[in-house]
Amino acid sequence: MKYCGQCGALVVRRTPTGDTHERFVCDSCLTIHYENPKMVIGCIPEWEDRILLCRRAIEPRLGLWTLPAGFMELSETTDQAAAREAMEEANADIEIGELYTLYSLPHINQVYLIYRGRLRSLDFGPGTESLDVQLFREGEVPWNEIAFPVVTFTLENFFADRRAGQYRLHHGRAGPAQR
Amino acid sequence: MKYCGQCGALVVRRTPTGDTHERFVCDSCLTIHYENPKMVIGCIPEWEDRILLCRRAIEPRLGLWTLPAGFMELSETTDQAAAREAMEEANADIEIGELYTLYSLPHINQVYLIYRGRLRSLDFGPGTESLDVQLFREGEVPWNEIAFPVVTFTLENFFADRRAGQYRLHHGRAGPAQR
Repeated sequence: MKYCGQCGALVVRRTPTGDTHERFVCDSCLTIHYENPKMVIGCIPEWEDRILLCRRAIEPRLGLWTLPAGFMELSETTDQAAAREAMEEANADIEIGELYTLYSLPHINQVYLIYRGRLRSLDFGPGTESLDVQLFREGEVPWNEIAFPVVTFTLENFFADRRAGQYRLHHGRAGPAQR
Repeated sequence: MKYCGQCGALVVRRTPTGDTHERFVCDSCLTIHYENPKMVIGCIPEWEDRILLCRRAIEPRLGLWTLPAGFMELSETTDQAAAREAMEEANADIEIGELYTLYSLPHINQVYLIYRGRLRSLDFGPGTESLDVQLFREGEVPWNEIAFPVVTFTLENFFADRRAGQYRLHHGRAGPAQR
């Protein structure tokens, strides 16, 4: 950020009085521009013993497989965001279930929330951000072609929990080792 | 938003090609300015049969009581945010436990995450954003002086779960009835 979105003046970087963090501050109109992490919200769509994955039509990781997920939008709830992303990326009508995964990715300022979900029908297919959408049994998942590590271990947790017969909330931190 | 933070030109409001939502777009440098909900993260600090509340020294709801909570910052995890807010608002050293509440407030574009937590000591006191910090038994909570509805029903859930002897993740939507 270089300019104030409110008045167009140049912003400066400093810790405002009484604050604990550096911010972009406008000395012209006195606006403090806060920056906060973004939520990436998705689901694991299930149909019987199979789960739905999307092959990405966009960068990053074009051509690799992922769960339907994306940035939460204004004026929606977290479960509405999960359902919307499945509709946009896979034209899939999903009954959103329980929250399954909450992972912080502080190196890229994202928080991943992944729900369990149930496909309401087999009427699905690639949206504009997907090249392909398919159902996979555990042994069929293209493990070497998964787009993001957080998706790989969400799926590993899911299949392990399913084998154990009990699903629990997975919570943690993902990304490079802490320095 | 009126001006582009990247180049200072005036922005316009429109749906970019291939997008599903209106955005602030800069036709000069071609930046699309996405806006996303913010996370408010806090905890319910426990000491034996009591919980810690803070009396707000700032608007909104100055003088009313709340759980230590605030906006998640860049470069931290969700549980680090919960611990940081307790330290800033109550000088309280908290062992953060399980996620207890996930509520979407779409009318103000916030998502509340409240953890359970344990005070590591009785060495606490008001930070700059608090007038007072006190421990309360269930019967002592100032129910008519709680700052936010989401805090009221988080506390109601907490005491009901504690009486039942089992805590579960509370998930939902808060705010005005859906139109």
